[in-house]
Order: sequence, then C-alpha cells, then structure tokens
Amino acid sequence: MIYNVELIGNGMTVPKRKVFSHEITKENELKKGVNPYGVRTRYWAVEESNSSLGAEALSLALLDAKIEYEELDLIIYASATYDYPLPTTACMIPKHLNKEHLETPCMDINASCLSFLSALEVAASLILSSTYKTIAIVSSEIASKSLDPNSPEVYGLFGDGAASFILRKSNNSNSKLSHFKFKTYPKGALLTYVPAGGNIQHRIEENPAEKWFTFQMEGRRVLKFTLDKFKIFMKDYEKLIGKQINSFSCVVPHQASRLSLEFFIKSNKLKENQVQLILEDYGNCVAASIPMALALAIQSGKIKRGDEVLLVGSAAGITLGAVSLVF
Amino acid sequence: MIYNVELIGNGMTVPKRKVFSHEITKENELKKGVNPYGVRTRYWAVEESNSSLGAEALSLALLDAKIEYEELDLIIYASATYDYPLPTTACMIPKHLNKEHLETPCMDINASCLSFLSALEVAASLILSSTYKTIAIVSSEIASKSLDPNSPEVYGLFGDGAASFILRKSNNSNSKLSHFKFKTYPKGALLTYVPAGGNIQHRIEENPAEKWFTFQMEGRRVLKFTLDKFKIFMKDYEKLIGKQINSFSCVVPHQASRLSLEFFIKSNKLKENQVQLILEDYGNCVAASIPMALALAIQSGKIKRGDEVLLVGSAAGITLGAVSLVF
Repeated sequence: MIYNVELIGNGMTVPKRKVFSHEITKENELKKGVNPYGVRTRYWAVEESNSSLGAEALSLALLDAKIEYEELDLIIYASATYDYPLPTTACMIPKHLNKEHLETPCMDINASCLSFLSALEVAASLILSSTYKTIAIVSSEIASKSLDPNSPEVYGLFGDGAASFILRKSNNSNSKLSHFKFKTYPKGALLTYVPAGGNIQHRIEENPAEKWFTFQMEGRRVLKFTLDKFKIFMKDYEKLIGKQINSFSCVVPHQASRLSLEFFIKSNKLKENQVQLILEDYGNCVAASIPMALALAIQSGKIKRGDEVLLVGSAAGITLGAVSLVF
Repeated sequence: MIYNVELIGNGMTVPKRKVFSHEITKENELKKGVNPYGVRTRYWAVEESNSSLGAEALSLALLDAKIEYEELDLIIYASATYDYPLPTTACMIPKHLNKEHLETPCMDINASCLSFLSALEVAASLILSSTYKTIAIVSSEIASKSLDPNSPEVYGLFGDGAASFILRKSNNSNSKLSHFKFKTYPKGALLTYVPAGGNIQHRIEENPAEKWFTFQMEGRRVLKFTLDKFKIFMKDYEKLIGKQINSFSCVVPHQASRLSLEFFIKSNKLKENQVQLILEDYGNCVAASIPMALALAIQSGKIKRGDEVLLVGSAAGITLGAVSLVF
C-alpha cells in the first residue's frame, strides 16, 4: 500500500532542564559519562507540560512547513503520557498557541512507544480518503515524573521531549509513505507497565503504594521476549518491501536502550552511520523518540528530500511496527 | 465524503452489579425512581475491568458478524478510561479471549465521549485505503471508580458498560458511512475534567487530594458553553448533508444528561420515538454510550438494514461530532 503523503514540516523540542548521567548515577557505573543503558544526558520537565512541549514542537513544525495554524484540519496527539486523565491532551495544545478560539478537531492516539507510527498510518489514510487535507501529529512525552529512583535501569534510561510533523498529500513530489506493518504480542503486555492509576488499581479504591504509579520494567525479560520476534518481524518486513533493511539510506529506530539498538544494528547488518541514534543525548523519550530522531536527522541534513527512510521500533503492548517513507 | 463501509456485527454488555437511583439518591429527589439527571438504573463494575468488559462486547460482536477473531486485522480500543496508564487497553483485550498467542495489531483512540465516532472515522479511512480489511472497535468505560459521592450531579449520572462493532468494506450492500464532522472548542477543555493522575498533577510529585482524582463537572456551565455551539453545529451539519436532522429514521445521540437530551430533541424538532434513549436504564456511559445505544437499537429492531441513522454527540474537550450512516 502506497500513500502519496508528504511530511511538509517538522519541529522538536525538549524541556529546559538538562540532566547529566553523572548527576544521577554512581561514578563507577559510567563510561565517559554514559551510563550502562546508553545515556549521557536527557531533559526532564520542571515547568513544562505534555501540551506545552507539544505546542512548542507544533509551532516549530508550522514554521518549517511555512503554513499557518489556521490551515490545520486535524491535530492528533500521539503519545503514551498526558496532561490529564480526561480530557485529551490534543485539545490542550491550542491553548498554548493562543488558538483556543478556533475549532480544529483534536484526538489522541496511544500505541505506547509506537504512537507516532500508528498516528502516521491513521493520518496517511485520512489524507488518502480526502477526510482531512492537512494534519498535524504531535508526540510529547513526560516520562520523568513516573520513574522510580530505586530502579536504575528505568531511572537512568528515560527522558522527556516532543516532536511534531505536518502531513499533506504529495501532489508535486515523490514523497510517500508505504508498507505500514504492526504486530501486537499481548503475552508481553505486562512486561513493561504502570500498574496503578487506571481502573485496575484505582487511586481511590485501592490506594496503591507510590511505587505502583511508576514505570515497571525488567529490561532483560523484555529484551528476551522481544529479540526473536523482532528478527522474524524484520525478515517478514524485508519480504513485504522486497529489499533488505540495510538498503535504506537512513534507518530511524525507536531509542529503546543501548542493548536493543546494538542488537538491531547487528542483526540487520546496518552501518552505524546509516542509523539515527539519539539515545545518548536524549534518553528513551517513549513515543517522542522516533519523531525527535527523524526531525533531528532532517534538520542536520542526514536525511534529504527523496531519501528512502525506515522508521521502526517496539512498544509496550508488546507491539512491533515499521513504515517506509520517501522523504 | 462517502465510505463504503458496513457495520457487520455488534455486541454490548454491562457489569453484573445493577445500581438503582433509590440506592444512592435521597427519596425526595426521585420521580418514579428517576433522579434529576435522568437516570433510574446504571451498572457499576465490581470484578470487571475495561478490557474484560470490552472483550465480552467484542466476542458478542464477532458472534453477530459470524466471523472468527482470527479474521480481525486491527483492534481499536476507543474509550476515555483504561486498565493501566501504560500499556494500551487494546492489547489487554485478547488476554480475556484466549487469543494472546495471536499478533493482531492493537491501538487506543481517545476523543473522550466521542471516542467511538473518532474511531469510526479512522476505521472507515483505514478500510477505504485498503490498509486493513476487518476492524473491530471496542468502547468500554468504567467511570464509576472516578465519581465523587459528594457531587450528586456526577455520582448520579454515570454508568459503566461496553459495546463493540466490526467493520468491513460493503461490497454487496448499500451500507455506508458518510459526512463525519468534528469540531473542538478548547476554551471549554477544563469545564469537564479529571484534574489529577496525569503529569499536571502527578500522583507522586504533587500528592493531590483524593477529590482531584474524580471527574469534575459543573453541568450548568457545560450546558451553557455547549448549547449555542451545538445549535450552530447542527445547522452546519444539515447544510453539509443537504437535509434536516429530523429526516433520519433514527438518531443516536450521546447520552450526556436529561437536560442535554431534551434540548437536543427539542431544538432539532425530533419525535421522541425517532431518538434512541438509554440514559434512564444505563446512565451516561462516556464513550460507550453511543455504540451501546446503537447496538441496542439494532438488536431491538428499531434500526434495520438500509435505515438512515445519525450518530451525534458532545465530549470533553469540548468536542462536537456527528456521522451519518446507512445501516
């Protein structure tokens, strides 16, 4: 399936507060400032909210696309974290841009760390079906408030950040999206989760301990569960697209962790300069990782118009996903 | 825009525990058992979870559609409440159906009380673009755990329940969806909200009082904010579809409250038997209200194949939305 859809603008931003690994890790666990999970620095929100960071990324994307906010027909907030349990975070974004008098439709899509990829698939179909003309996707994550300081592999791994892309039909260009592929493996659904805060362990009824409001992950068990499935998934994806993963001029993976990225690069026989890596500088920014990495690759000139790019990753769920694009 | 998409199966369910208004309301506030918000009975979850109720509704929809779970290409969970803050509730549903060995992609869509309508729009586009063939939408809400007993207009209004619809391309029928229309008015975003539990008032960092984890709504302010906008929205919608709202054989509104339904019926000159009302029996079931009402109308024979139906409603955000369908 080919979607004649173009990414006409992008923007990314991070909170003001930069946190170095040497501030939060024992000195003997660092190698040249990088912790065992592959992170040297990350940004953690203080004053910022999901919607304020998202709004900033969106305004940068609008500038880059050279269009006005008023031209947007739909705003999709594609993230795993949020301002409030209700309403959606999408409807909070216009407030930060003094656009709350407008009536642009808003919705949230959540596919954990792959929310941006799912939103791309949805947006591409909505544009192809002429339902909407110009769509903004905003991924904005604040993971830092849900990290347990006593769980170093979580506390040292995650960062906050936001990215936004504007999409439109590609009438006069070769830009396109193609070959969306997602698989969810529910057996792994509770290998990475936040136990309390939903209806299973409700804040009021159950009164759970603070710990259960933090992100729970056993990195090794997740990696073990995912690795074989990822190998098969990538082989199937190569069959689907009729070429090898290492033939893409740039691969933008989810920045899950150092080990997962090393495995991904090795098993797909990728050269390191072919892969966009931002883990060391930004940490794992949940669903914002892929669009932040993509935006940075475009802004640095690593990805140019016409380049073939693969976006790929894993998410709590556990879901694996990929999409090919000609930028 | 017309989407040749058919609702090939539906199912709905509620928790076991039935709660009568006389159990939770002062006797002098009831009229023949109905409270001032229009509710006589609602169902409140005890053992049930969002995903277990959703799975039950989905299995009923599969039975009605006469297809196997294995034929599903995508599961969209379209609701405002959830099992866990992470991962998505969609990926929890297969567990209840002993289908967790399968790899069906899963994602969550949240547009507050209009989640089902937004998911319909997304699913219709995904089917039209041949991205997926058979899609299940599941709306399952447990509002009861987030209700403040000291806020009678909230405590007396909401119920829990779930509904599911299966969608496919309508090759050999006249069934279709058309004229999706959504407008979000961010000025009203915080007129109905759950203040704590997201990143704005995080459970750990801010340690908010229990009250702030409950649904906050000032019914009159919401109604005042919404009424004029709804009038204009419906007039615009009549222009868009080229006919009057009261020409639909059945109108299925969101079951927001007694006052909002009375206003809606009156201002659109609808006959009461033209409108599917389930508020008295089930309460306001958030995003599950519209699909539950639609499923009940189909199951009772009030809506037959070929009938023209309007789904319409309001949501926190504040969003107004509508879609026309030929069943």
